[in-house]
Amino acid sequence: MRVPFGELHDTLRRALVATGMEADRAALSARLFAEASRDGVSSHGLNNLNAHDAMAAAVGIARAYGIGCVALRNTNHWMRGGSYGWQAADAGVIGICWTNTLANLPPWGASDPRVGNNPLVIAVPRGNGHLVLDMAMSQFSVGTLNAYRLRGDALPVDGGYDREGRLTRDPAAIEASGRLLPVGFWKGSGLSLVLDLVAAMLSDGRATHEIPADPEAETGLSQVFIAIDPASLSTGPDLDHLADAVIAHLHAGAGDVRYPGERTLATRQRSLTDGVLVDDDIWAAVKSGQWEVR
Amino acid sequence: MRVPFGELHDTLRRALVATGMEADRAALSARLFAEASRDGVSSHGLNNLNAHDAMAAAVGIARAYGIGCVALRNTNHWMRGGSYGWQAADAGVIGICWTNTLANLPPWGASDPRVGNNPLVIAVPRGNGHLVLDMAMSQFSVGTLNAYRLRGDALPVDGGYDREGRLTRDPAAIEASGRLLPVGFWKGSGLSLVLDLVAAMLSDGRATHEIPADPEAETGLSQVFIAIDPASLSTGPDLDHLADAVIAHLHAGAGDVRYPGERTLATRQRSLTDGVLVDDDIWAAVKSGQWEVR
Repeated sequence: MRVPFGELHDTLRRALVATGMEADRAALSARLFAEASRDGVSSHGLNNLNAHDAMAAAVGIARAYGIGCVALRNTNHWMRGGSYGWQAADAGVIGICWTNTLANLPPWGASDPRVGNNPLVIAVPRGNGHLVLDMAMSQFSVGTLNAYRLRGDALPVDGGYDREGRLTRDPAAIEASGRLLPVGFWKGSGLSLVLDLVAAMLSDGRATHEIPADPEAETGLSQVFIAIDPASLSTGPDLDHLADAVIAHLHAGAGDVRYPGERTLATRQRSLTDGVLVDDDIWAAVKSGQWEVR
Repeated sequence: MRVPFGELHDTLRRALVATGMEADRAALSARLFAEASRDGVSSHGLNNLNAHDAMAAAVGIARAYGIGCVALRNTNHWMRGGSYGWQAADAGVIGICWTNTLANLPPWGASDPRVGNNPLVIAVPRGNGHLVLDMAMSQFSVGTLNAYRLRGDALPVDGGYDREGRLTRDPAAIEASGRLLPVGFWKGSGLSLVLDLVAAMLSDGRATHEIPADPEAETGLSQVFIAIDPASLSTGPDLDHLADAVIAHLHAGAGDVRYPGERTLATRQRSLTDGVLVDDDIWAAVKSGQWEVR
């Protein structure tokens, strides 16, 4: 079913307060969760306030100095990583952030998981709609494989290997082997490794190989948040014009080409017009107070 | 043939001076070129001193403030991008840099080139060998497609589309269609777009769609150089231990798994022991003074 954004936000806020959460934190958590659902990302639960605070700090430093970098250690799963990109872009700055994860991806040349899928977010502010890239280093997430399998669909492109080591579009075969494909084969594998190392180094925190292999409670993560204020390095007023021209060129000609964040904006608009899509059973449980924070 | 590194450097330096280049700039250019050849990257010619100077400036800012960002507009092709990553890591700091390029890659959903392959470099310093990732946003470079075709080999994985729009490992079919594959399909396409936009915004320079389509003289590029001093954010002394542990875990177990930069170090060692591999005819021309800077 679909529920109005305001009702979703307020209901979640009250549910969180009822669990004993402080009012300010409950309101922010509820907003981040409601916004993720509004944008069509309902696969992740409550957001990570640590990540939100870290990006806010990076934005503050960038406003003062042009660029700011904040690293977090021993933090929780950041849920929808794109949230912190939208946050930076809403503040008018470029946001670059990433997190490491537990080992869930075989690096190029191996068949067992030794690197994380370490999502990377890059956000660019624009008056007519921010560009927000939110990409994990696996071609498909575990959740996406699961969704394709449940629908009985093949993946649109190769997503990993079967148990015999053959590239495949069969989601069940990839789930059985655990051999997800890194983005761009050896390239995504290498990018994942350096993102992990930089996050662990800058936060003095854990690298992927030190993160406990419990996907239900992915904790002890290392994260990096970089904000850059384009007004500090550039002329400022023409930035929107520049971004608009880049997107106009991307859209020109044949084919269905979208910029990162474009589909999210369309989903957001529909949610605000028609209500936010929620799971009927979960929504009923939240409304009745029979809801547990995990 | 193979020539000693010192002889390569010195011969190039003298050849550049003979063309009228100032002594200091000739020495640095010759060093960057000789180092690229030593590391097995002979496909690119003389390096871009602008990029070297920009990374040096970013490193200086990072040493003073923890993080530094320098953007260049209207600059030339940076040749081997990895050079500036090695440069940062040699200085003990994390280096992140990228360049835009002319439009040479169809974005996801289109069949004509509208984005650049915009190489991204991330370098992490380590006492036992830096990690240096140097990845373009196309799965294979134009040069690599050419090399596979000349050898009569198929690509190891899909590298693009043929004229009928089918994914293929045939390098000639991809060269004919011009439809190179972005790393990770839609993901590399999106990453390429945001890297282009950030480079143009921060440098107040040209975006890919404004760069003239002359691959022989790729000019008017925008580049970003970020340096982060890990000692400013972390405890410092344990960083090598952290990186060594990450690599030990990557190498543990079955399979031939390498970290970004590992193969380069092996090539470098062989070059220093046995001499740097050079093309016989070009080397003879340089030695005899019959050599032109293009």
